[in-house]
Amino acid sequence: MNDKLQIADKTFSSRLFTGTGKFSSSALMKSALLASESELITVALKRVDVQDKDDDILSHLNHPRINLLPNTSGVRNAKEAVFAAQLSREALETNWIKLEIHPDPKYLLPDPIETLKAAEALVKLGFVVMPYIHADPVLCKRLEEVGTQCVMPLGAPIGSNKGLKTQDFLEIIIDQSNVPVIVDAGIGAPSHAAYAMELGADAVLVNTAIAVSQNPTAMAIAFKLAVEAGRIAHQAKLAPIVHKKAEASSPLTSFLN
Amino acid sequence: MNDKLQIADKTFSSRLFTGTGKFSSSALMKSALLASESELITVALKRVDVQDKDDDILSHLNHPRINLLPNTSGVRNAKEAVFAAQLSREALETNWIKLEIHPDPKYLLPDPIETLKAAEALVKLGFVVMPYIHADPVLCKRLEEVGTQCVMPLGAPIGSNKGLKTQDFLEIIIDQSNVPVIVDAGIGAPSHAAYAMELGADAVLVNTAIAVSQNPTAMAIAFKLAVEAGRIAHQAKLAPIVHKKAEASSPLTSFLN
Amino acid sequence: MNDKLQIADKTFSSRLFTGTGKFSSSALMKSALLASESELITVALKRVDVQDKDDDILSHLNHPRINLLPNTSGVRNAKEAVFAAQLSREALETNWIKLEIHPDPKYLLPDPIETLKAAEALVKLGFVVMPYIHADPVLCKRLEEVGTQCVMPLGAPIGSNKGLKTQDFLEIIIDQSNVPVIVDAGIGAPSHAAYAMELGADAVLVNTAIAVSQNPTAMAIAFKLAVEAGRIAHQAKLAPIVHKKAEASSPLTSFLN
Amino acid sequence: MNDKLQIADKTFSSRLFTGTGKFSSSALMKSALLASESELITVALKRVDVQDKDDDILSHLNHPRINLLPNTSGVRNAKEAVFAAQLSREALETNWIKLEIHPDPKYLLPDPIETLKAAEALVKLGFVVMPYIHADPVLCKRLEEVGTQCVMPLGAPIGSNKGLKTQDFLEIIIDQSNVPVIVDAGIGAPSHAAYAMELGADAVLVNTAIAVSQNPTAMAIAFKLAVEAGRIAHQAKLAPIVHKKAEASSPLTSFLN
Repeated sequence: MNDKLQIADKTFSSRLFTGTGKFSSSALMKSALLASESELITVALKRVDVQDKDDDILSHLNHPRINLLPNTSGVRNAKEAVFAAQLSREALETNWIKLEIHPDPKYLLPDPIETLKAAEALVKLGFVVMPYIHADPVLCKRLEEVGTQCVMPLGAPIGSNKGLKTQDFLEIIIDQSNVPVIVDAGIGAPSHAAYAMELGADAVLVNTAIAVSQNPTAMAIAFKLAVEAGRIAHQAKLAPIVHKKAEASSPLTSFLN
Repeated sequence: MNDKLQIADKTFSSRLFTGTGKFSSSALMKSALLASESELITVALKRVDVQDKDDDILSHLNHPRINLLPNTSGVRNAKEAVFAAQLSREALETNWIKLEIHPDPKYLLPDPIETLKAAEALVKLGFVVMPYIHADPVLCKRLEEVGTQCVMPLGAPIGSNKGLKTQDFLEIIIDQSNVPVIVDAGIGAPSHAAYAMELGADAVLVNTAIAVSQNPTAMAIAFKLAVEAGRIAHQAKLAPIVHKKAEASSPLTSFLN
Repeated sequence: MNDKLQIADKTFSSRLFTGTGKFSSSALMKSALLASESELITVALKRVDVQDKDDDILSHLNHPRINLLPNTSGVRNAKEAVFAAQLSREALETNWIKLEIHPDPKYLLPDPIETLKAAEALVKLGFVVMPYIHADPVLCKRLEEVGTQCVMPLGAPIGSNKGLKTQDFLEIIIDQSNVPVIVDAGIGAPSHAAYAMELGADAVLVNTAIAVSQNPTAMAIAFKLAVEAGRIAHQAKLAPIVHKKAEASSPLTSFLN
Repeated sequence: MNDKLQIADKTFSSRLFTGTGKFSSSALMKSALLASESELITVALKRVDVQDKDDDILSHLNHPRINLLPNTSGVRNAKEAVFAAQLSREALETNWIKLEIHPDPKYLLPDPIETLKAAEALVKLGFVVMPYIHADPVLCKRLEEVGTQCVMPLGAPIGSNKGLKTQDFLEIIIDQSNVPVIVDAGIGAPSHAAYAMELGADAVLVNTAIAVSQNPTAMAIAFKLAVEAGRIAHQAKLAPIVHKKAEASSPLTSFLN
């Protein structure tokens, strides 16, 4: 089955994107991320020593399969985001940027206004922009219109592990989108990841749920399998949910009589 | 990883049990069930020509990995169930029986009273009894006490594809049970199967969701992967759901300043 | 609007049944129960001094509107339940009995087998039997067949305040039942009570959620209003849930042009 | 109990706001809206003949208790919204405006960017701005910062009757907001309205669910009661949801022995 995901100039075999935060050690991070077979891994620019090519995190992610996706986590507005992205492009030699603008340190929810403004500017500057946003269908369309290469709506508050609480809106976003839809934030279990893929998401990004598991490497494998399961199920089409009246798996007959 | 499931005298590598109903052809059924790698497959006794060793369904399920699990679907009370089980043992040469007693033809929900009565009788007659029941924790304990080798609580009305609607009770059942807990009925998507396994179920039984998919063989593979994902996640321990206050995947710093 | 509820020989204006457990004082209990306008109030037989007509709880419930409903909470099997009911009839001069048999002290979930057995015996002894049971549609039918005057399926584990977790099965029970369906256990908020009534339940029983509120009397009023709201909505018919495609509350026109 | 809601210069006894769309006749609308006891009723500016003081809708809403809330439904951007609001102020002699900007005619979801822009302009022009928006906590804070007198996040796609699908985000909005939070769109049943109030919403706006009921006047009463129930419950504090382990309403004793 040739079911690759295309974003800008890159082609991905894996639809599980991952992150580098919260692992208890770099060795565990490396083991888990390799086991996940993820090909796109986000790293917070603020955690990288951009002066140092031998930076610890970067050296662990140095692998032919892995594409680095720097993110702007920590910036509070469009201006800071654009500056951070430019810094990142220079230091890490990639024009891909995960755009995260969350002014509020408590819930880390994204700012729709600043995100759109920064996205527009960054697209003009030649970036491949992957914006982390609320599951707001209108905002997703506007981001697509200014040229982002995908949209990354959240499933639930980041770090909550609550799953697809925004399901009703993700369905609309998926229905309307002309760019890949990647569910970001809130995915706390492989079943959540499978569900996102069943709904028709093009990929998911998982970080916390892998990093804080008692066994991150095993959990990474679980997510890999779940994403594959959900993708296959989406293509094979799920049986419809039947309301009110049940039907037997096999017809009743009077076989005993 | 050696993570086998033991029921009575048999050991299973796969925790996905399947059924034979509703497939549009025997060829499709065979293809899907082989792809699922399921080692325990239920077949309605009423659909088998017990006089005929070359019966169509049975011949398709003739494979070294496959164990046949005849079920009593269609019987209305304990007496009929015991009779059907005895017939089955003689004809199919197995003392395993999936006990299904649903007097009502509309919703096909199991009868707790007759099921317990039949289970007790069948255990005394030397059967390995696998009872399909409501997700009733007290009933599950009573079945365990009369000697059933597992319990098979339903997740949702059979054929509804609604998933784990009985979740709160399944958690209690799993917490209390000394025999394997196999979630039966209602599982309509790989994400549901993964979720059941994450909760700690020992296995799931899936039939409709595979059989009525547009691509049963692909869907069987999706369920196989999802069950593996859920099982691994259960063992690696999921990150807890965080209520109210979110936490960032990576700490905020003043890196831009 | 004449919308009374009939059970056996009694007619109720209020569809909110209540209980007497967990209040921090008898005075608070009395205030809350009067404010609820409940006409059927359950009291655990084990908490009543049946030798003493001036028993504290009973004297607080002495009110022309209030019917006492003794319950068998604490018994572990049918035999104990029948004995308790007979004791109750003699002491409290009522043949109404709320039948609760929960052998397990941890979750207090009802035993389907013993409950049916006791119900059958008590009906023969002339009792008006109100059985607390799992939301098991087949068991509900069997109880109706042996002559219980209503069924009292649970919404969620008792004391959990989780609401109508058994919704899919309550719908089937309501659809099939020829006797009143009263949702018991799990109702933790007025919105849950309203929802039960919207689904078509004939009444709800609420205890913990009122008793442990910071303001039991206010909470009792809230439940009273919510039950009325849900009942009226059920009769006026709810608008259907619209999946997938939204519709505007008012049509779009080109009024600005 | 003095529990009034203050918005700008007005004080409301009722926390149920209503709308005028979708009623099958003006007489039914009038009957239902009076029965609801709603004091703030929204009307689409596009449906009003602003040249005609005897306009049909307006004349039906002419009642001392009723405050009219014109809305901008049908406009596609900030510029149109500001123009419509000014037209409305002149014609209807109110500076209150419900700001609705939904460029997409299929789902009628609000545009966050244009809504913030229009809100800022309208506040400067002296309007009392009530913005209909996605349940986006960051956007709500930004609207509050530009001076809107409340925020009106949606519960579910408009007209879907699905209830509080945005619950997790509404909780954050309510937690953070310094202006009243009014849940708008998606409320399809009195139980949903009660739930919104239990969560701590200051009011709800209901239109479709009343207008398309088989008995709009009865349904209006049901919503009135449910909103009161939810508000009282919020103030009396709900009992907490108990996970995992249940507790009995009354302690178990060995009373029968």
